Amino acid sequence: MQPTQSTLLTIIIGASVFALIFAVWLARWVLSQQRGKVEMQRISDAIQQGAEAFLTRQYRTISMLAIVVAAVIYVGYAFLRKSNPSDPVSNPRMLALYVTVSFLLGALSSGIAGFVGMWTAVRANIRTAAAAMSSLNGALQVALRGGAVAGLFVVSMSLLGVAGLFAVLTALTPATMTPADWAPHIPFLIVGYGFGASFVALFAQLGGGIYTKAADVGADLVGKVEAGIPEDDPRNPAVIADLVGDNVGDCAGRGADLFESTAAENIGAMILGVLLYRYFGIPGILFPLVAGAFGLIASIIGVMTVKTREDADPMQALNRGFYVTAGLSFVGFAGACKWLLGAPLQAAPDAWWHFLLCGIVGLLTSVAFLLITQYYTEYAYRPVKAIAEASQTGPATNIIQGIAVGLEATVLPVFTIGFAIVGSYYLGRASGLVNDAGVPIGGLYGTAIATMGMLGTVGYVLAMDTFGPITDNAGGIIEMSQQPESVRAITDRLDAVGNTTKALTKGYAIGSAALAAFLLFSAYLDEVFNYTGKRVVVDIARPELFVAGLLGAMLVFWFSSLAIKAVGRAAYSVINEVRRQFAEKPGIMQGTDSPDYGRCVDIVTIGALKEMVAPGVLVVAFPIVVGLVFKTFGLGAEAVAAFLMVATIAGILMAIFFNTGGGAWDNAKKYIETGVYGGKRSDTHKASVVGDTVGDPFKDTAGPSLHVLVKLLSTITLVLAPLFI
Amino acid sequence: MQPTQSTLLTIIIGASVFALIFAVWLARWVLSQQRGKVEMQRISDAIQQGAEAFLTRQYRTISMLAIVVAAVIYVGYAFLRKSNPSDPVSNPRMLALYVTVSFLLGALSSGIAGFVGMWTAVRANIRTAAAAMSSLNGALQVALRGGAVAGLFVVSMSLLGVAGLFAVLTALTPATMTPADWAPHIPFLIVGYGFGASFVALFAQLGGGIYTKAADVGADLVGKVEAGIPEDDPRNPAVIADLVGDNVGDCAGRGADLFESTAAENIGAMILGVLLYRYFGIPGILFPLVAGAFGLIASIIGVMTVKTREDADPMQALNRGFYVTAGLSFVGFAGACKWLLGAPLQAAPDAWWHFLLCGIVGLLTSVAFLLITQYYTEYAYRPVKAIAEASQTGPATNIIQGIAVGLEATVLPVFTIGFAIVGSYYLGRASGLVNDAGVPIGGLYGTAIATMGMLGTVGYVLAMDTFGPITDNAGGIIEMSQQPESVRAITDRLDAVGNTTKALTKGYAIGSAALAAFLLFSAYLDEVFNYTGKRVVVDIARPELFVAGLLGAMLVFWFSSLAIKAVGRAAYSVINEVRRQFAEKPGIMQGTDSPDYGRCVDIVTIGALKEMVAPGVLVVAFPIVVGLVFKTFGLGAEAVAAFLMVATIAGILMAIFFNTGGGAWDNAKKYIETGVYGGKRSDTHKASVVGDTVGDPFKDTAGPSLHVLVKLLSTITLVLAPLFI
Repeated sequence: MQPTQSTLLTIIIGASVFALIFAVWLARWVLSQQRGKVEMQRISDAIQQGAEAFLTRQYRTISMLAIVVAAVIYVGYAFLRKSNPSDPVSNPRMLALYVTVSFLLGALSSGIAGFVGMWTAVRANIRTAAAAMSSLNGALQVALRGGAVAGLFVVSMSLLGVAGLFAVLTALTPATMTPADWAPHIPFLIVGYGFGASFVALFAQLGGGIYTKAADVGADLVGKVEAGIPEDDPRNPAVIADLVGDNVGDCAGRGADLFESTAAENIGAMILGVLLYRYFGIPGILFPLVAGAFGLIASIIGVMTVKTREDADPMQALNRGFYVTAGLSFVGFAGACKWLLGAPLQAAPDAWWHFLLCGIVGLLTSVAFLLITQYYTEYAYRPVKAIAEASQTGPATNIIQGIAVGLEATVLPVFTIGFAIVGSYYLGRASGLVNDAGVPIGGLYGTAIATMGMLGTVGYVLAMDTFGPITDNAGGIIEMSQQPESVRAITDRLDAVGNTTKALTKGYAIGSAALAAFLLFSAYLDEVFNYTGKRVVVDIARPELFVAGLLGAMLVFWFSSLAIKAVGRAAYSVINEVRRQFAEKPGIMQGTDSPDYGRCVDIVTIGALKEMVAPGVLVVAFPIVVGLVFKTFGLGAEAVAAFLMVATIAGILMAIFFNTGGGAWDNAKKYIETGVYGGKRSDTHKASVVGDTVGDPFKDTAGPSLHVLVKLLSTITLVLAPLFI
Repeated sequence: MQPTQSTLLTIIIGASVFALIFAVWLARWVLSQQRGKVEMQRISDAIQQGAEAFLTRQYRTISMLAIVVAAVIYVGYAFLRKSNPSDPVSNPRMLALYVTVSFLLGALSSGIAGFVGMWTAVRANIRTAAAAMSSLNGALQVALRGGAVAGLFVVSMSLLGVAGLFAVLTALTPATMTPADWAPHIPFLIVGYGFGASFVALFAQLGGGIYTKAADVGADLVGKVEAGIPEDDPRNPAVIADLVGDNVGDCAGRGADLFESTAAENIGAMILGVLLYRYFGIPGILFPLVAGAFGLIASIIGVMTVKTREDADPMQALNRGFYVTAGLSFVGFAGACKWLLGAPLQAAPDAWWHFLLCGIVGLLTSVAFLLITQYYTEYAYRPVKAIAEASQTGPATNIIQGIAVGLEATVLPVFTIGFAIVGSYYLGRASGLVNDAGVPIGGLYGTAIATMGMLGTVGYVLAMDTFGPITDNAGGIIEMSQQPESVRAITDRLDAVGNTTKALTKGYAIGSAALAAFLLFSAYLDEVFNYTGKRVVVDIARPELFVAGLLGAMLVFWFSSLAIKAVGRAAYSVINEVRRQFAEKPGIMQGTDSPDYGRCVDIVTIGALKEMVAPGVLVVAFPIVVGLVFKTFGLGAEAVAAFLMVATIAGILMAIFFNTGGGAWDNAKKYIETGVYGGKRSDTHKASVVGDTVGDPFKDTAGPSLHVLVKLLSTITLVLAPLFI
């Protein structure tokens, strides 16, 4: 017996609302913790103000851009779009309104999710710092639970949004249509939501990424290199901007990124579920959301189980929490498979356990990505050690080796993705589902389910990710307010763990983006089929499509160049400001005069907001131009597909290159700081600082923005497909 | 009235033999020049010995690898290959023999072409140095004519090889077959030749590229950075190895690369000509070779017109020579179009001038590539200036800016390639040629003709390229033998021009590789069609093909990583040797003891040969493994095609990134050396040296090897296609 639509929606919405309430409770718990000494509070307040000021201004800019895009969508759908005979909403203006509203809702939700996460993070940092003054476990728990607020908000808002839109749209559908008529079209209307989310995510990640690295590079180059003062020294005028950057880049940025992932991937999977309507009905469409709801509960439990002994490695505690979450999420996933897919409308007795195996493939993929990322970015292993070793002969060999490691780091992830896609596709095909002609049709749903398996732990992963900037900030607060060495030892340990978890999240994000991209392609191809009745064949042996693919890969390079240069330019303005302050107020260095932190924060804010526009607009405009140009050759839909797929391939590889290369350089420096090859202040260490600085815009601006780019390209083509046909 | 096959073969073979004789005459002319002072001769002799010793050992290694591959080809064709009902040679062992022999011939010819070029270059260097003692014009002419020996040998050997095989194979074809029966199959038999050529080119470029940069980086890091002695200082034990490296990397490597280009592109174009047999008969197949023959004569005239006033910029003289060559080659090309394609067997009155327009597209593409490369690598323009400016804030910002420039440098070339491919394809389609069903079929031949247009100037371009290492060596000889400042001024000017011409050739090589790759794809698809009677559809929306494409792009990253690391490892052994010599013989630095140059040469030789094997074997083995694995899914031919195409896209982009980034860093350093931002010995200059060193393995090892990789993948899949079906 299949569960009904209302049962399923109740579960999804119930779990999401519960998680939201729980997140609020967690936030209150975090807020109820002690805020430590006054001098610490002063620093934390400055960070908080800077971060909130940036986010407010950033959202204002993004809102204006979003309104322009919303207008384009409305006009495109209402007036330019080729009408589709099987549209569930016959009035084109009504349809345009639905898509536009879901775009705006997606954008708004993504904004809220990012804001809430950052709001908590900039309050959790000081409380983590205060807790670190008495115990490691206390600090660990405050930081992780602060991070979990972001994680739970992101996932539950995403589930709520998609499920809510689904519920509203089905309620609005004319009563004359049977579910079999309208169900296939609903997810396409929701696609605007995914586009809205990825639109905001792109600018949030870009703006935040540029902010954080401009401040970091600027602060380091003048502070550490020119003035010779340590990191996080209160005499450095850019130090607050640097701490603000950790929040706006890593919390708000990554929050929007993974909000977008879960939204887009759920939508993509739902679209594929529609293809199996004859077998699974509504439960097949809602399966991704149900699995996500169970994963959300698993993440809550996982977060709450984390605790550490004072003398233990906190990373082990976080790993335990991850395995608890993964295990519970697997149980929920298996249950959902049996319950939703185990009683199909037509005979398909083996389908549910085939899809369960697909879910396991996804889960194993996420574990593989975590292990591979650790191998390439932790200094226990060969790659980082090789970079440290190469630093002995100077910065040039450090850079050469780091780039070689970054390039090599693409190999294992690609094999993993390849196995996951082909494996889950063949498992799905073997599920026994066939169309009227007897052709197996479960393959793509199999890859969708694998993606869901991978995303089961997203809430926990995001909590671990936001843990990073919180502990980083806590360390900065302790350092700046000159607390005792023993407290620093605790925050340093947490900070090191935070670096690892941030790297892990990036690996996880790119892995799930790779799986999800394929989902969204398929959805795109289905959509074109829905409009034209013809299967799109993306034959890149055709010269036009080969060129479209070449353009797609080039976009990735072009965008990366713009993003990296943006950091350079914004950093340059910081450098000039810091130099100016040092020159005009010589008292700063003697500690008799205090630097003007606020001006630095302002300068980075303005710089980052200005610089994020060009690369962001490029990504949105370029696929549209490609589609319209190739439409004149009669190949709009095909060219956009080729563009999208090759861009995805290039984007995945370049993102891994940037993220891993950057992470490896960072930890090579940290490895040398443990005392090898001469330790701190040796020439080898200086060489490794160069690599670390080069890696900054790689791993925190270009790389993470590329995850979003990959998904944005998919959603934008999905939404705008009707224009290219 | 169409020309006969024998007329055309006479022209092709006649022109090639004439060019060979002319090259011998040029070589004798170069050898007849003065060899300067005894101390200069001693250095030149050492370079010559080192280069010849390396090449001999390298060819020994490559021969062994080639024999293994030849055995695989023979066994594959004789025993494993699916037989093709329309084979011109019915006995599979006979066929296997043909393909294997043409592979070995291609390998041998490529080896000879590379060797002859280098043989002349290591003799022209000392004569250029000697000529520079009296005049700029004399030195320019000796260097360019020395380079032309290489250029003419490469192009004429390639034409002779392909035309000769064509002649022999047609003569061997049974008399019972009409030309219409056998002609379509001949080019496929010749494909082995292209594979042989690209096989040798890959290892020659890899080995040479690793050699030259290991020696360069090793010499610089210990000499310039640690010991503080200038470049090309005779006290540096690695200095001779460095000068040897210029020859084995730039002459022998690039010679093999462009030999391979012309061979593979001619073969690809001939295969496409076969498709138009009903219109153009044999002349349509031989057109590429005839156009090449005319271009060869144009290159001879172009080289001989080059002369400069003593006070002029020698680059202008070289540019004039290029435009003379391009103009003459265009005239020949137009004549060939009218003569060979202007009197078709079926009515197609407009075909010839459509194809002439395609040729113009190709010619303009080559000009565009030269201009774009100049913009991104010369310090008169923004990109290089921006890198120099960023060097003021240290090596990290120098590297970040350089990487951003390299990434951005892909944009215009991709648009150019896109226009060239789509433009020539549509011109060719509009030529009026149709198949039985009335479908236009001239499109791909149009892109082939565009490639031929681009390749018309290859002889001259290669002469300019080899000019680079000759003048570089001449400068080194002058420097090491401590000749007067006035002579150095002349060799410095020539050396700067040589840097530009080397960068231009790389741009040219990658541009033609991009166009040619498309040619070879099409040939591959035709071949599969010939075997299976089914059109291969490379639909990358299929999960298996998407994964194959992902693997292809990843191969480019993996290979680049191996190539870069190989340089690092080989350089490390040089560094240790130089340090050892400095430590054991303190007299070297005082000039009382002479360093052991030979040991450094030996060490780099052994290192480079060892290190070239892994990346080379990866490139050959990986596509075979991909083909065989996906064959088990029944998608061998399609997966290999997707693999090949996406690898080509990634290869083009990464090659441009590496070449341009490296060139821009190099010239940013040179720009600072002109006195800006503090000039030589400033911190800004030191920062720019870091970028220059990082760029070395990019632009001289990874980048150029990627050109070859792109073409090798095409030829290997063409030859081995029967195994994947």
